[in-house]
Amino acid sequence: METMKNLTTLCLKQVIKPRPKQSHKGNFGKILIIGGNKNMSGAAIMSASAAVHAGAGLVTCATDSSNFFALHARLPEAMVVDHSDFETLTQAIKQADTIVIGPGLGLDQLARQILKITLSTVSPTATLIIDGSAITLLAQQNEPLHPTCQVIYTPHQAEWARLSGLAIAEQLPQANQSAQQRLAAHVVLKKYHTEIYHQDGTISRLPIGGPYMATGGMGDTLTGIIAAFMGQFKTLAPADVLDAAVYLHSAVASDLSQSKYVVLPTDIIEHLQAFMAQFS
Amino acid sequence: METMKNLTTLCLKQVIKPRPKQSHKGNFGKILIIGGNKNMSGAAIMSASAAVHAGAGLVTCATDSSNFFALHARLPEAMVVDHSDFETLTQAIKQADTIVIGPGLGLDQLARQILKITLSTVSPTATLIIDGSAITLLAQQNEPLHPTCQVIYTPHQAEWARLSGLAIAEQLPQANQSAQQRLAAHVVLKKYHTEIYHQDGTISRLPIGGPYMATGGMGDTLTGIIAAFMGQFKTLAPADVLDAAVYLHSAVASDLSQSKYVVLPTDIIEHLQAFMAQFS
Amino acid sequence: METMKNLTTLCLKQVIKPRPKQSHKGNFGKILIIGGNKNMSGAAIMSASAAVHAGAGLVTCATDSSNFFALHARLPEAMVVDHSDFETLTQAIKQADTIVIGPGLGLDQLARQILKITLSTVSPTATLIIDGSAITLLAQQNEPLHPTCQVIYTPHQAEWARLSGLAIAEQLPQANQSAQQRLAAHVVLKKYHTEIYHQDGTISRLPIGGPYMATGGMGDTLTGIIAAFMGQFKTLAPADVLDAAVYLHSAVASDLSQSKYVVLPTDIIEHLQAFMAQFS
Amino acid sequence: METMKNLTTLCLKQVIKPRPKQSHKGNFGKILIIGGNKNMSGAAIMSASAAVHAGAGLVTCATDSSNFFALHARLPEAMVVDHSDFETLTQAIKQADTIVIGPGLGLDQLARQILKITLSTVSPTATLIIDGSAITLLAQQNEPLHPTCQVIYTPHQAEWARLSGLAIAEQLPQANQSAQQRLAAHVVLKKYHTEIYHQDGTISRLPIGGPYMATGGMGDTLTGIIAAFMGQFKTLAPADVLDAAVYLHSAVASDLSQSKYVVLPTDIIEHLQAFMAQFS
Repeated sequence: METMKNLTTLCLKQVIKPRPKQSHKGNFGKILIIGGNKNMSGAAIMSASAAVHAGAGLVTCATDSSNFFALHARLPEAMVVDHSDFETLTQAIKQADTIVIGPGLGLDQLARQILKITLSTVSPTATLIIDGSAITLLAQQNEPLHPTCQVIYTPHQAEWARLSGLAIAEQLPQANQSAQQRLAAHVVLKKYHTEIYHQDGTISRLPIGGPYMATGGMGDTLTGIIAAFMGQFKTLAPADVLDAAVYLHSAVASDLSQSKYVVLPTDIIEHLQAFMAQFS
Repeated sequence: METMKNLTTLCLKQVIKPRPKQSHKGNFGKILIIGGNKNMSGAAIMSASAAVHAGAGLVTCATDSSNFFALHARLPEAMVVDHSDFETLTQAIKQADTIVIGPGLGLDQLARQILKITLSTVSPTATLIIDGSAITLLAQQNEPLHPTCQVIYTPHQAEWARLSGLAIAEQLPQANQSAQQRLAAHVVLKKYHTEIYHQDGTISRLPIGGPYMATGGMGDTLTGIIAAFMGQFKTLAPADVLDAAVYLHSAVASDLSQSKYVVLPTDIIEHLQAFMAQFS
Repeated sequence: METMKNLTTLCLKQVIKPRPKQSHKGNFGKILIIGGNKNMSGAAIMSASAAVHAGAGLVTCATDSSNFFALHARLPEAMVVDHSDFETLTQAIKQADTIVIGPGLGLDQLARQILKITLSTVSPTATLIIDGSAITLLAQQNEPLHPTCQVIYTPHQAEWARLSGLAIAEQLPQANQSAQQRLAAHVVLKKYHTEIYHQDGTISRLPIGGPYMATGGMGDTLTGIIAAFMGQFKTLAPADVLDAAVYLHSAVASDLSQSKYVVLPTDIIEHLQAFMAQFS
Repeated sequence: METMKNLTTLCLKQVIKPRPKQSHKGNFGKILIIGGNKNMSGAAIMSASAAVHAGAGLVTCATDSSNFFALHARLPEAMVVDHSDFETLTQAIKQADTIVIGPGLGLDQLARQILKITLSTVSPTATLIIDGSAITLLAQQNEPLHPTCQVIYTPHQAEWARLSGLAIAEQLPQANQSAQQRLAAHVVLKKYHTEIYHQDGTISRLPIGGPYMATGGMGDTLTGIIAAFMGQFKTLAPADVLDAAVYLHSAVASDLSQSKYVVLPTDIIEHLQAFMAQFS
């Protein structure tokens, strides 16, 4: 097993570069966020907002139709799709180059169907970020579908236990990596000092972040940043881009924690653009 | 009777401490805010917002379903439950370690049922904050249900008159304390120089705050701060945590009143994080 | 006829005073804003927001029920009433000590009914501010109802023409005052250098304000400020309080126009609290 | 063919002038924004918001009724009309002096009908800005209706290909101008260094702007600024006013890009008033 690389600000400098002058919104990702049932609408809103503020070109949110109002009130930059309209959802999945599934999706029958459609429809050239309830749903299946595209799982420790079969006490680097390699995907294991297991066998460790980030919605926000980065920095190595996205999330929070006792997901979202400006 | 302790900034220093590094959102309170009928949605929104901004880990709001849009447009960090869906409401009450009932709940039959379900379902290890119309509803009952968990009442003087039977002119410390001890609960008596009667027999007095706080929603905001504090500072003495929450609410307002003729509930909410940062 | 008094900052100093320490939200006005049909919801939102930010104790907005979401998303401090539920509306009118009717009310049959209920229900001790479409509706009636309470009309020149019968070219001070005295009300005639005709026979003139204020919603915002002032400064002479409210609206706009090409109604609302702080 | 004029800050100085003192909201444009279906509500919200912040006197948004809530939550200054209520829509078109059609309108049968009504109803003295899906719909028609009023098309390159019949590689100034002159309209061809073909035969070129503007909604925002400028600066040459509007959009973005990695449409909207203040 490789040793873990401790991430530093350098990982941001390597990824957040000036954009090519002759580029347009189509060059910076067609992102689809799938999530947000009637009770957890906010999760999808935060994921979509983080994506827009982190530089995504085009963001669409497939969510319960009752969530359209709040989403547009906060984020007019995003388009919406009713996630129970499977025909339109399928179309949206086909057009996206980067997809997040999971934030606030829930665990009911509709969520299960949406996940199934997503896994079977996603383009082989797309990147799929699987988070939250979508991880739990996948773990419940006997023979989980494995999409052929690039996949990034973003479990916290309990979700990783479900997906990997490793109890939290067993979640040591070597065991984690074995499980991750069986999944043939990147795994962002969210914990005190988050670990990122890349598909190429390298492992990164996040030395920043802290308990001021312990508010519901923090993980949803991370998915949006990852999506924006995978969508807009397509010419760079995916492992580097993923590291930068995860680092950015905590770096902004760490910065804001100097002046706030807790840093909310929406605080991070609001400061992404200014923080990223330091590196371009 | 004990003498009243005049609260000072010291009460914040004793409670608002750096968080343990290895902690997560589950450690900082699973808060449930129950309130907000069709006409008084804002009360529940302000209570939930105050809870999130004061550091609560997870906040769910059980409210009229027509309020979901405005709540999520303001506060995507919160989850929602339809408070007329009694099965889901019961589930949410069981899972919460800190509950607020009352802000904007109203006095109708549905409010009565919701209060009844809450009192009979709340976990014995939870903390229950009873405010506004929930106090009035309780006072109307001949034999009020007394939950076995820790209870905090937050009446203004007219509500305290209903609950204690003491006319406002009779609301002197000794009489207040006798009534409070019969309730076997903490009582935050909101008035010019708010008084806090603790279950352990001590009494605190709030020497700060002022008429710049005289806007509807101020009390709703206080309930959210109290909930966040009871939920996240569980290892400290409840009387100290309650004092700090009440003090914080007025301390932020007092600070903002230097530059604003009136300080709105939403102003206080917005500045909680920065104000708390001074003490950690 | 008296000469017109040119208003200066002095009129703010005389009215915006420190509040009595032992006071509560009930002392600073129970305001009811009646307006906002399906198409002009924003007018009622701006009026209610201005009232809250200018210091009103309690604000309720009687409006089309489809407007509840947007109102609460912007202003959780306000309560709402469905203005087509006449029983609840009547109750709300009876409880209010200051009422605004007109912003975004429209001219249809429902608007007519709501105006009729308001005029026949308003408490004799209340202050009633009649604006926008409510003025036009009143002018259309052959024998307009005259409530016995204190009334303030806030017409622009075309509305004043309808209400007074004076063509714009005829709207000279003496003619205006005669018409105003027949109405037995205060009249705020909104124009370049707004004129305020008081019930006591005095006239004030507003030398500030300018074309940076020429955005829809500016008049709605003024009604909310007037309501907040009439509601919270009840012990002062109504003419002085009305002058101060009208002056404040333009003084804030004038101040903001240093740094903004146009000053929006929502900009004024946002800066009311800080501007008023200079005078207390 | 004339040579292209490179736009500079001078174009703003020539147009953004102090307003006449005796003016009112009716003097600064009666703007109607037509767009925003259920899935692309944000486009209409951004167009309307840009219009209000850029100085429009009165803004109405004709959109899907499900979008009213989010629009009013963000922009109470605007009025709304249900765009599927053709009678009211027709009335609104007749009353407007400046109309935007297209942002988020979509391509379905309803969109087609709305476009047809707009083209046949618009006043000959009005200015009509045709954007986004409305351009695509027009290009699909065999014999497109040509309104007799002043028209401004705002296509990106793919839309211009559809409208002009010129493949992107063929979109050279002379060919573009020929196509534009056949349309008897102004054409703002949005690309790296946007080109503006005026009805009077002159051509301008925008040397500012950049890839930090590559977020969905950027074009919608431009339409609102153009509408506000055409509506409020009616006494100036239309070519100059159009140039100034297009320049302003990118000048604000360029300014904000000093401190933000990407500049969102809503960021531009928020800073329009302050940026314009430099020139008056």
